[in-house]
Amino acid sequence: MGSETIYRATTTAPVNIAVVKYWGKRDTKLNLPTNSSLSVTLSQADLRALTTASCSASYTGGDSLLLNGENAEVTGARTQACFRELRARRAALEAADPSLPKLSTMPLRLVSENNFPTAAGLASSAAGFAALARAIADLYELPASPAELSLIARQGSGSACRSLFGGYVAWRMGDKADGSDSMADQVADAAHWPEMRALILVVSAAKKGVSSTSGMQQTVETSGLFKERIASVVPRNMAIMEKAIAERDFPAFAEVTMRDSNSFHATCADTYPPIFYMNDVSRAAIRAVEQVNAKAGRTVAAYTFDAGPNAVIYYLEKDAAAVVGSFYHILGAVEGWKASTVQGLTSTSAVIEEGIAGILKTGVSRVIETGVGGGPIKTEEHLVAADGTPVKR
Amino acid sequence: MGSETIYRATTTAPVNIAVVKYWGKRDTKLNLPTNSSLSVTLSQADLRALTTASCSASYTGGDSLLLNGENAEVTGARTQACFRELRARRAALEAADPSLPKLSTMPLRLVSENNFPTAAGLASSAAGFAALARAIADLYELPASPAELSLIARQGSGSACRSLFGGYVAWRMGDKADGSDSMADQVADAAHWPEMRALILVVSAAKKGVSSTSGMQQTVETSGLFKERIASVVPRNMAIMEKAIAERDFPAFAEVTMRDSNSFHATCADTYPPIFYMNDVSRAAIRAVEQVNAKAGRTVAAYTFDAGPNAVIYYLEKDAAAVVGSFYHILGAVEGWKASTVQGLTSTSAVIEEGIAGILKTGVSRVIETGVGGGPIKTEEHLVAADGTPVKR
Repeated sequence: MGSETIYRATTTAPVNIAVVKYWGKRDTKLNLPTNSSLSVTLSQADLRALTTASCSASYTGGDSLLLNGENAEVTGARTQACFRELRARRAALEAADPSLPKLSTMPLRLVSENNFPTAAGLASSAAGFAALARAIADLYELPASPAELSLIARQGSGSACRSLFGGYVAWRMGDKADGSDSMADQVADAAHWPEMRALILVVSAAKKGVSSTSGMQQTVETSGLFKERIASVVPRNMAIMEKAIAERDFPAFAEVTMRDSNSFHATCADTYPPIFYMNDVSRAAIRAVEQVNAKAGRTVAAYTFDAGPNAVIYYLEKDAAAVVGSFYHILGAVEGWKASTVQGLTSTSAVIEEGIAGILKTGVSRVIETGVGGGPIKTEEHLVAADGTPVKR
Repeated sequence: MGSETIYRATTTAPVNIAVVKYWGKRDTKLNLPTNSSLSVTLSQADLRALTTASCSASYTGGDSLLLNGENAEVTGARTQACFRELRARRAALEAADPSLPKLSTMPLRLVSENNFPTAAGLASSAAGFAALARAIADLYELPASPAELSLIARQGSGSACRSLFGGYVAWRMGDKADGSDSMADQVADAAHWPEMRALILVVSAAKKGVSSTSGMQQTVETSGLFKERIASVVPRNMAIMEKAIAERDFPAFAEVTMRDSNSFHATCADTYPPIFYMNDVSRAAIRAVEQVNAKAGRTVAAYTFDAGPNAVIYYLEKDAAAVVGSFYHILGAVEGWKASTVQGLTSTSAVIEEGIAGILKTGVSRVIETGVGGGPIKTEEHLVAADGTPVKR
């Protein structure tokens, strides 16, 4: 088997945190959403999935995925859908040019690692499926654009389609039954508004909540308020948000971000039985952001929460002292602060009131400082060695 | 002055806990609601306001109110509206029959006491304004029906209009600009479904939240989901609830009660900035009720939350062992349990899971066991002595 060629391609893909949330599918098989959504792609220096896609006629035992050092399932419908779509495109190239090696017929060996603790409870599936799609497309040398790959990654994990691009990314819900128009596009690249920063407060959840996959369908089926979110709240938020990004209008960006997070969690609370992703620590983070903005006399920070208790706080670089300073003042003891940011801070006086500060001190386990970043990056840092074996790290 | 007659009338009025919530005014001055609501009147043996209305030409210093032993403000617009409406009706009687004493011109001396700790954080304004209206109407010997008095009490505190009746009470929102059709009516008296019980878990709120008066208008003005609640959710809940009560269908009563509480708190969370009345202890109570129902294999309990963290759990007398037993098993140490209920319990095995039980044990400060009850009751237990002085107790 040593004589058989080992084909490899490796890419990194980013995490994205939505400011207009995806919640609800109109087609669960194709991962077609009930509404469009918009997110900020976060810097891969802080949060990224690194994935090597490899194939070889010498590989035995079929397709495989080694995720963060452990064998993961690849027989799931979503992963299979991605493999099928990518292999079909490769097969078309091979049919058109018989000189091409038949990679589409070879077993796939995928090895993927995240550079952030899974314990952080950050949705890693978006970065993971985006990296998987991009790496296999590169392995197969497909002429696929990020938009086309977003159609494929979407079938793995809805929000993954937004991680094929950097900067500010919209996932257009589309209206076709086959989902061929439900893809991502870049509203603006990171360079358009590079000052966008994010401070993530990692909150240790007392208990794993409802998975977002099942949760969102329970909301679609039982919330009496949900259809209003879909019919009018989200379309309005998308329009205001795209304009705010085009004009680099942080107060407008911030208000929609906070309102849409509130609206999303409200529909979860209106689900029957109710779904609660935020806890008292999350709510304390909201009050803290309100106090930081009140102290500044203008909107310098915006909170948003995904399907978990972690708070993601967006702010602009120029307001780091007001925002990061206020949280570092009470959470300086937890891990994750960047020396670069913290050194620059003039000692801040207490901005967040005692009661709220106390709840945050006991409930926040770590912080992650990051900001807007670019899309997937091809790299030679392969996780599969030249002989086809997974790289030990 | 000793020669001047002292006129007195005393009544008790009950607390009511809504199962279809009142949240939002279409007219803040007249307390006209954005939607109809429905509540269960609770037994006055456990929760009631006792109010004596007295007047005399000998009283000096104008109208006064002694509430739970402390002088309270009577100059507020809402209290003044109630006084004005009642005096106008008395004045009409006096004009028609000159032989009647001119009570409408005399200073009012009101003394009121609740039989439950204000610390419990139970909305006492409903019982208070209902008792105030009923006591003054009796003092003035007005021929006013409970429905007519509900129009007056409504102007003091919206939900007070529902405390003029016992049993199961609807507040019809009405559509007239002057509010003359926004009043309460009795859907069914307590005797129609006397087995309805309520277990109240008193949760010590870490911090006083937003007052319901200001909170509900913030929701009306900023929630993108609120109008859907008003336009379709509440009308549907009202229809299902009235049928459930007519048919004594507890599962239907319970589902609407829980869904409507969820919907109300969802619109609070969708308010900008968001309003949170429930905390992690409240949410643990919801999970506990779900577990009690799951263990029973049918719906034996229903939770509902007003503008605060306390959980009110409705159940039927026949299911006391399953419901009260499950909570007594973990909360037996807190005050408020009735020997009569507890003695009847066969020792229950743990139904509520450990994590949830732990949160409840640390967050519930007391319980109140009660049930559906009757409307205001006239009594000779005056809080103003024959000589016009407040009774010391």
